Amino acid sequence: MNDRILKALRGEAIDRPPVWFMRQAGRYLPEYRAVRADVSFLELCGDPDLACEVTLQPLRRFELDAAIVFSDILPVLEAMGREIQFGKGMGPQIPEPVRTEADAASLRQPDVAKDLWVAPETIRRFRKAAPDTPIFGFAGAPWTLFCYLVEGSGSKNWVHPKQMIFQQPALAHHILGMIADAAGDYLQLQIDAGAAAVQLFDTWAGVLAPDDLQTFALPYAKRALDRVKGAPRLYFMKDNGPVLHLLPTTGADAFGIDWRTDLAAARAVLGDTPLQGNLDPLALFAPPEVIHAKARHIMEAAGPRGHIFNLGHGVIPATPIDGVHAMIEAVHRYGPEICAR
Amino acid sequence: MNDRILKALRGEAIDRPPVWFMRQAGRYLPEYRAVRADVSFLELCGDPDLACEVTLQPLRRFELDAAIVFSDILPVLEAMGREIQFGKGMGPQIPEPVRTEADAASLRQPDVAKDLWVAPETIRRFRKAAPDTPIFGFAGAPWTLFCYLVEGSGSKNWVHPKQMIFQQPALAHHILGMIADAAGDYLQLQIDAGAAAVQLFDTWAGVLAPDDLQTFALPYAKRALDRVKGAPRLYFMKDNGPVLHLLPTTGADAFGIDWRTDLAAARAVLGDTPLQGNLDPLALFAPPEVIHAKARHIMEAAGPRGHIFNLGHGVIPATPIDGVHAMIEAVHRYGPEICAR
Repeated sequence: MNDRILKALRGEAIDRPPVWFMRQAGRYLPEYRAVRADVSFLELCGDPDLACEVTLQPLRRFELDAAIVFSDILPVLEAMGREIQFGKGMGPQIPEPVRTEADAASLRQPDVAKDLWVAPETIRRFRKAAPDTPIFGFAGAPWTLFCYLVEGSGSKNWVHPKQMIFQQPALAHHILGMIADAAGDYLQLQIDAGAAAVQLFDTWAGVLAPDDLQTFALPYAKRALDRVKGAPRLYFMKDNGPVLHLLPTTGADAFGIDWRTDLAAARAVLGDTPLQGNLDPLALFAPPEVIHAKARHIMEAAGPRGHIFNLGHGVIPATPIDGVHAMIEAVHRYGPEICAR
Repeated sequence: MNDRILKALRGEAIDRPPVWFMRQAGRYLPEYRAVRADVSFLELCGDPDLACEVTLQPLRRFELDAAIVFSDILPVLEAMGREIQFGKGMGPQIPEPVRTEADAASLRQPDVAKDLWVAPETIRRFRKAAPDTPIFGFAGAPWTLFCYLVEGSGSKNWVHPKQMIFQQPALAHHILGMIADAAGDYLQLQIDAGAAAVQLFDTWAGVLAPDDLQTFALPYAKRALDRVKGAPRLYFMKDNGPVLHLLPTTGADAFGIDWRTDLAAARAVLGDTPLQGNLDPLALFAPPEVIHAKARHIMEAAGPRGHIFNLGHGVIPATPIDGVHAMIEAVHRYGPEICAR
């Protein structure tokens, strides 16, 4: 099996940085849109055959060093007893958000092996279909799932989750604990199914002030990750630039870095800890020479060891495929000389 | 005139930190909503009598140390030749966005005294109505205005502005230069009308990676601010936590700090430079004791001099008025002991 990802996560010498990217199985690919012409997003997430197929799609086009299981972050909330809906052109909706103690009493601690079997099964099928390529498992981080669960949808200001932490902190802690245990067990299940590494996605922890982050987000990321053994555990918090020094409190083995932070600055704060990132996803709209210069700068800033090349957030649907090719080409072209230092 | 703001901006000893807050004249106030029942947002922005009235509203309720002229950031784009529309419940729309050289050729360099007279006239009226309260003038920062001008609306990913900087950088520089000159002259006009200080709002600079920020945002903030004399110039960039060390390149006299950054960290990077901020606007939903603790922490972190208490972003419409009272009370209660150190 291609071992660049695991070597990078152990900080070992390597021929070049491994490269994969967040949402690499997704709407920017015409073959993905073709699959989605016949099935909804939720149907796709619920079908391990189709999910395995779209997980494989980017590997057929690009020379990537890892896959990530096609799934969503919200199945954990579904397993806790909340219906998730995706309206046409809308983000996720939870018709019964959790805002009171009575609401919370109707949540259940999922039996992850029974309730969250699709991603593990997708991973098993992927391992058979592409035994040479390591695959990431993932879950939404507790704070991020809490945001959706309490707000009932995406949001600009997250009034309801923030109201709850300020007005009903004990209730918030209770719900976050339930989510953390479920998310951790779900990651473990994916490792047990063959995931080479797992990533906890904290899309919305970055809306919190540092004191609240340290109370309501990072400790629950830690609680989830503490339940996970047997494979490296990455923590990606969007908007993590102002709080890099706090990330190690999660106990994660490696950190994804948002694109608004220079990787040299992240390296200065986080030392030899393996880092993943961090090209601006929108830079994939640039001409190849601009992409090459930016990718090279990122690899130089990260240094010769302990770096997984990635975007600094998920690829967006309108992204030109040529930009993706240019990014990967840059890693292949300039990575070896940097890793040889 | 109440001189706490100017003393704080000079780093002088002071009895307590001054306090005002972004969007303090706005939709969270029932008396503002009453005015808006009869006039649209654009009508309000275009009428110096009504704009002066809503500028005065928060001063009648709260003991604040400054006002900010009621206006919007987009009049500069209107003066450059683009119609702005606000649909019901929608953000700003520009029906003719600027994406090509031909589009840009139809922009004009405004005659600010003629085209942008409303905010200065509002300031003059305010000075007569409330001669004891200093008033801030403001403008949208060049990068942020560029985002709206090129995208034609608000956006999550700002594909069009980023496409332009990557694919047509010379065109982007040309447009940014035009906006910077107009924004700077507009700030000067507000000072000439009686503004005690001015603030440049860079809501969207935080979507740029650091290299692009240093190429397309900060130099144009500097270009705008360089044209402004006679009053202190603040620069507020949302999401500025990862790039605090770059802010001084704007040449601003003081910086607003986003709520996701601990003010002690900002102080460590920016030294004695006056800082403004930075309570999470959503913390105003908390009980008074939580607001007090957070406000006190912020004042302690900022230290006894060179701090203007503010939110870390604008107050949101759903904010409870009691939370605003608690915030101001906390500054009045705990500020004196901190400033006496």
